[in-house]
Amino acid sequence: MRATFLYGAGDVRVEDAPDPTIQHPTDAVVRVVRACVCGSDLHPYRSMQATVVGAPMGHEFLGVVEDVGADVVTVRPGDLVISPFAFQDNTCVYCREGVQTSCVHGGFFASGDVGGAQAEAIRVPQADGTLVKPGVALADTDDAMLASLLTLSDVFLTGHHAAHMGRVGPGRTVTVIGDGAVGLSAVLASKRLGADRIVLMGRHRSRTDLGVEFGATDVVAERGEEGVAKVLELTGGEGSHVVIEAVGLLPAYEQAYGLVRPGGTISRVGVPQYEEAPVGFRSLFGNNVTLNGGPAPVRAYIEDALPDVLSGRIDPGRVFDRTLALDDVSDAYRAMDTREALKVMLVP
Amino acid sequence: MRATFLYGAGDVRVEDAPDPTIQHPTDAVVRVVRACVCGSDLHPYRSMQATVVGAPMGHEFLGVVEDVGADVVTVRPGDLVISPFAFQDNTCVYCREGVQTSCVHGGFFASGDVGGAQAEAIRVPQADGTLVKPGVALADTDDAMLASLLTLSDVFLTGHHAAHMGRVGPGRTVTVIGDGAVGLSAVLASKRLGADRIVLMGRHRSRTDLGVEFGATDVVAERGEEGVAKVLELTGGEGSHVVIEAVGLLPAYEQAYGLVRPGGTISRVGVPQYEEAPVGFRSLFGNNVTLNGGPAPVRAYIEDALPDVLSGRIDPGRVFDRTLALDDVSDAYRAMDTREALKVMLVP
Repeated sequence: MRATFLYGAGDVRVEDAPDPTIQHPTDAVVRVVRACVCGSDLHPYRSMQATVVGAPMGHEFLGVVEDVGADVVTVRPGDLVISPFAFQDNTCVYCREGVQTSCVHGGFFASGDVGGAQAEAIRVPQADGTLVKPGVALADTDDAMLASLLTLSDVFLTGHHAAHMGRVGPGRTVTVIGDGAVGLSAVLASKRLGADRIVLMGRHRSRTDLGVEFGATDVVAERGEEGVAKVLELTGGEGSHVVIEAVGLLPAYEQAYGLVRPGGTISRVGVPQYEEAPVGFRSLFGNNVTLNGGPAPVRAYIEDALPDVLSGRIDPGRVFDRTLALDDVSDAYRAMDTREALKVMLVP
Repeated sequence: MRATFLYGAGDVRVEDAPDPTIQHPTDAVVRVVRACVCGSDLHPYRSMQATVVGAPMGHEFLGVVEDVGADVVTVRPGDLVISPFAFQDNTCVYCREGVQTSCVHGGFFASGDVGGAQAEAIRVPQADGTLVKPGVALADTDDAMLASLLTLSDVFLTGHHAAHMGRVGPGRTVTVIGDGAVGLSAVLASKRLGADRIVLMGRHRSRTDLGVEFGATDVVAERGEEGVAKVLELTGGEGSHVVIEAVGLLPAYEQAYGLVRPGGTISRVGVPQYEEAPVGFRSLFGNNVTLNGGPAPVRAYIEDALPDVLSGRIDPGRVFDRTLALDDVSDAYRAMDTREALKVMLVP
């Protein structure tokens, strides 16, 4: 099969690779129908040391089951399935508590001996706990529906996780920092959960325009202290009940505690590119600010979101503004790295 | 009147001071019946630069109303009242959201032009929003009841705040780091909220013994990595749903994220003596750990706790293991600084 590997900063290639096979009785092999490039893929794309052994890439996909191990009971060859970006048994103690990304038998795609999803096919460990049938056959979908279903693999439900952890709901003001695909998804998720007011902080007009269509009531292009002042002004000096940090860089976190309301929540879904940050009296403690978030336990949220996607009530797939063939994956990375494209879908 | 002032590290004195008077129509003047020394008073007691103008001290008290301003309607001279350690109007937007410590008209005792509570009398700003009548007359109380009512001013409800923010309840394992009066109060509060298992981390036998009487099911004397390993072992390797950090030093925080369960909460009520700390993928983000807590909005919790105190169902006043006259306040600080006493009550 053809599959994507990263050999160093800026050096991403599609190559021939062995077809994935069942290795454990709980595995499935899925033929990938749609995959995509994640903002988090850009971190190694920008910084990885050159290597002779390529790293498999991609963790968001939907596809059709091709083969299943002897113990797999919930999916059959031919089923259209959505996969979370992490696999899990969905039965362990942490899974039962809704933290599937910390599953004791779980892990991440494109990591260790588990291949990447920017490929023609992929082995899915813990298939019963991982794969979800959307309740529609491939033949009954169209491109727009596939795009929206694909976002349930990561990006929309990562935005949803942020909003859920922030306890977004009616009467709450939400500020989303970051106009990338996760930030825009967080806007859509906040709207879906009933937020009254959604401030989107971003400076890319085409992106913030989509944010407004998704439900943002205000757009703030300013950053840093200026951005904080603007959001405080918009909220009558009170600050935002929930701040969703969808960037992952320290200045975005600093912005977050600058504009969060006393007693409010900073919910992070941008993977932090820092380890140490202010958490003391002046930043979080003094005003009883809650800090939470993390890798989204997507598996916990798929079934709840599916009816809204299938009915067309929400169309999270609009974050994809470009579709490329798998063989053009290097163009996909380049387009996202230069911000020409918001998020690129790949068709194997 | 007599009142306590700190002049530098180790130099705390009781002196004559002007009697407090009504300065705003929303003020009350309260004759202090019981006050005490807080763990947070020890920070300046250990580190304050010498000064010629003493800093007023003390923020925990109950007493009898002596005088009220023209606008005060909820309390009258002669009423026994409990005061939270912070004053507030209890009507502003943040108060209504349960964050009274961030009240727009609020502030802290022993700060600015507001006197301290380790004194014979004190001016209470925002009396209607601040003072709570326990529903019992001074003549109908005894020493033990006064001690327990005094803890509703700060220490017991600070422990309660930690447990509340950690969403302690049945089925949850709680670990409390710190065997000071706040830590022990957090044990009692966790027990009251129905926690199944309460691990107390502390090494002072007389204190942890009281912790066991308050409801701790396990005591861990080890600290640091050893302490983390011990709690993980006690929880079958899973970690603690809630970790209450009642110390305020960085090693205690590091211990907290070492033993918290994926998806769990670190609730801090020890005032952090640090500003920067680890919050990235390895400490909080990777396992979706929530960090919250802050200065306890005690005012939000007093009415709910009163019936349990008045009925004797809980006796949080047992954290006081010494009672001294106000004039002996320097002995009180010394005894707490050297850990001879857990918490000292002062009788003016």
